[in-house]
Amino acid sequence: MSRPKAIEYAEASTAVREVFDDIMSSRNVPDVNNFWKYLANDPKTLKRTWESLKEIMAPGALDPLVKEMVYLAISVSNNCGYCIASHSAAATKAGMTPEQFAELMAVVGMANETNRLVNGYRVPIDPAFEK
Amino acid sequence: MSRPKAIEYAEASTAVREVFDDIMSSRNVPDVNNFWKYLANDPKTLKRTWESLKEIMAPGALDPLVKEMVYLAISVSNNCGYCIASHSAAATKAGMTPEQFAELMAVVGMANETNRLVNGYRVPIDPAFEK
Amino acid sequence: MSRPKAIEYAEASTAVREVFDDIMSSRNVPDVNNFWKYLANDPKTLKRTWESLKEIMAPGALDPLVKEMVYLAISVSNNCGYCIASHSAAATKAGMTPEQFAELMAVVGMANETNRLVNGYRVPIDPAFEK
Amino acid sequence: MSRPKAIEYAEASTAVREVFDDIMSSRNVPDVNNFWKYLANDPKTLKRTWESLKEIMAPGALDPLVKEMVYLAISVSNNCGYCIASHSAAATKAGMTPEQFAELMAVVGMANETNRLVNGYRVPIDPAFEK
Amino acid sequence: MSRPKAIEYAEASTAVREVFDDIMSSRNVPDVNNFWKYLANDPKTLKRTWESLKEIMAPGALDPLVKEMVYLAISVSNNCGYCIASHSAAATKAGMTPEQFAELMAVVGMANETNRLVNGYRVPIDPAFEK
Amino acid sequence: MSRPKAIEYAEASTAVREVFDDIMSSRNVPDVNNFWKYLANDPKTLKRTWESLKEIMAPGALDPLVKEMVYLAISVSNNCGYCIASHSAAATKAGMTPEQFAELMAVVGMANETNRLVNGYRVPIDPAFEK
Repeated sequence: MSRPKAIEYAEASTAVREVFDDIMSSRNVPDVNNFWKYLANDPKTLKRTWESLKEIMAPGALDPLVKEMVYLAISVSNNCGYCIASHSAAATKAGMTPEQFAELMAVVGMANETNRLVNGYRVPIDPAFEK
Repeated sequence: MSRPKAIEYAEASTAVREVFDDIMSSRNVPDVNNFWKYLANDPKTLKRTWESLKEIMAPGALDPLVKEMVYLAISVSNNCGYCIASHSAAATKAGMTPEQFAELMAVVGMANETNRLVNGYRVPIDPAFEK
Repeated sequence: MSRPKAIEYAEASTAVREVFDDIMSSRNVPDVNNFWKYLANDPKTLKRTWESLKEIMAPGALDPLVKEMVYLAISVSNNCGYCIASHSAAATKAGMTPEQFAELMAVVGMANETNRLVNGYRVPIDPAFEK
Repeated sequence: MSRPKAIEYAEASTAVREVFDDIMSSRNVPDVNNFWKYLANDPKTLKRTWESLKEIMAPGALDPLVKEMVYLAISVSNNCGYCIASHSAAATKAGMTPEQFAELMAVVGMANETNRLVNGYRVPIDPAFEK
Repeated sequence: MSRPKAIEYAEASTAVREVFDDIMSSRNVPDVNNFWKYLANDPKTLKRTWESLKEIMAPGALDPLVKEMVYLAISVSNNCGYCIASHSAAATKAGMTPEQFAELMAVVGMANETNRLVNGYRVPIDPAFEK
Repeated sequence: MSRPKAIEYAEASTAVREVFDDIMSSRNVPDVNNFWKYLANDPKTLKRTWESLKEIMAPGALDPLVKEMVYLAISVSNNCGYCIASHSAAATKAGMTPEQFAELMAVVGMANETNRLVNGYRVPIDPAFEK
């Protein structure tokens, strides 16, 4: 196995094209991102991931902008460079302003800080939180 | 040094009490959580953390509920048990419904999954995301 | 201290060369990877790491391909770019097929997702698992 | 929202029962684990997660024991206590011996160590790994 | 929102310049690092982060070199490339020798290894450690 | 395989006892911690881990207290409960004061915060740090 390569639409199987077509029409874009072109190396994972993502990111009790910002927050916390770039773009497309981005980063940073303070001081859970 | 212990109000220094008083009045609660009682072992970190948190979590471009949900999302991703318990409670107090919690967890899970798919397939960043 | 540099065989001490020689003969390769050339800045860590790795990755109750795939899985989960590249190559050399790689990535992604769902829902351990 | 609770079969909706039934018949067990009872708070995530897991963990290019051991390896690396307990049990059921477990842990530990040595020494990727 | 850009002194607001001035005079340097130029997109976070960092990294019960090495250790463990580069430089400036760096990396690697061995073997805390 | 159990000295093999004896005499303690009793399920990993740890944690360019504090810092950052407890005890035994612990936690928290700010703002490495 050499390094995974992108599968472009022109060379894709019918199963892969069906997913690409659905991504392009759902998002109203002329091409899919590299993420999908690389996942196309595994058509089952491509299809499962796209269908899961479509279901999870649809408007619901949380609006799509909030969902995109949470996705970005996790990607930042995990330091996934591609994911930070792609979900910054997606959140921006969904309406995230620079001010919202700035506040989001502040929360992500602070949560990562206090999570460790809690660990280090071995803080026991308040009984009220267990109910 | 033995295991850190909670510092209760009655035994706290004036500097610690000032922070505790501000937490209780800002949040309109009769006592502070264990997190603050343990941080009170280091009055400077107690004060700095509280002031940072108060600034970051205040209403702004993002509303407090969104901020609390992002805080919870990071805590879940990092598996900080205390933080998950306390920020679940805080988010609930800020209005998070069970449906919102469920969708939040779905996004956190999915982001953690796709972050790793991206890593493994070594997906290069689309030039459009770099602008 | 400036940025660590690679130590090439020609400039290496006898202690480093002995480790390099053992790596090259054990793996039947004409040169060592960058990982070893950088670790050579600390001959004790070079030697300890190589000897540990040789012991751990040897055939045993698990065959070498499984071990290489687990190593790759952890590297993907931790997002170590160098490690993903080097252990993808090592697993491929040990026989990993593209289909095995694809399934491996699917498991790594899924495990990272469900790990967080468990955290967020605060699932208590089933008594049967504690035995 | 109070702390998530388990949804038992007797009190579950039809949609949840259908998933529970499929888990029990697929695995030939008389009840589902706590993970599924907690996910049942979100029937869509329950169904999506179960169907994804069933597809991913099925025999394929990798045999089920290898998949279970990789799942365990990731859970150990992420320190998810519930997941470690449940996937230790699952891997054992799939045939993992104590010797295989011991070797698996050795690889997980070593990978976590060398991942950080790579980070700290800022090792550049060997050109051969990029092909 | 496009990709965040550096804010240079010449184009910075008065609030940002005040922080930049304090960084430059505190550290006796002619310019600030990229970290501060990017944080300058959010003047409140810039100010709060700088003031927190100045307080935390000041000489105290731990000397500045130890603090810089701990900062580097965490950055290596988290695989933050920028942070590894900047805190390697800062630790070196504070006096870290190549021998100290090598020992630091050995400890960071070992801790990451044994942390996972502990997780996998589910080691219960010795009662003596709980006091 | 059931849940791993502690191997006590009385029931241990000769190979395990030799390691236990060396730990007890090196540390001048009457018994070994649970970590070693659990690792004893895999005598090779027990021996390799102890010998690596003994070499790494010995006095060198860094003094043992600094090494123990770095070990604790990583364990806190990774949220390994057992490791936090055991290395808090070890650092205390090596002389860590409550003031040093407090400053250590402050650095660990701050590093985890700024690591994420760097990720989110996608800060490019200053050329000066690459030398």
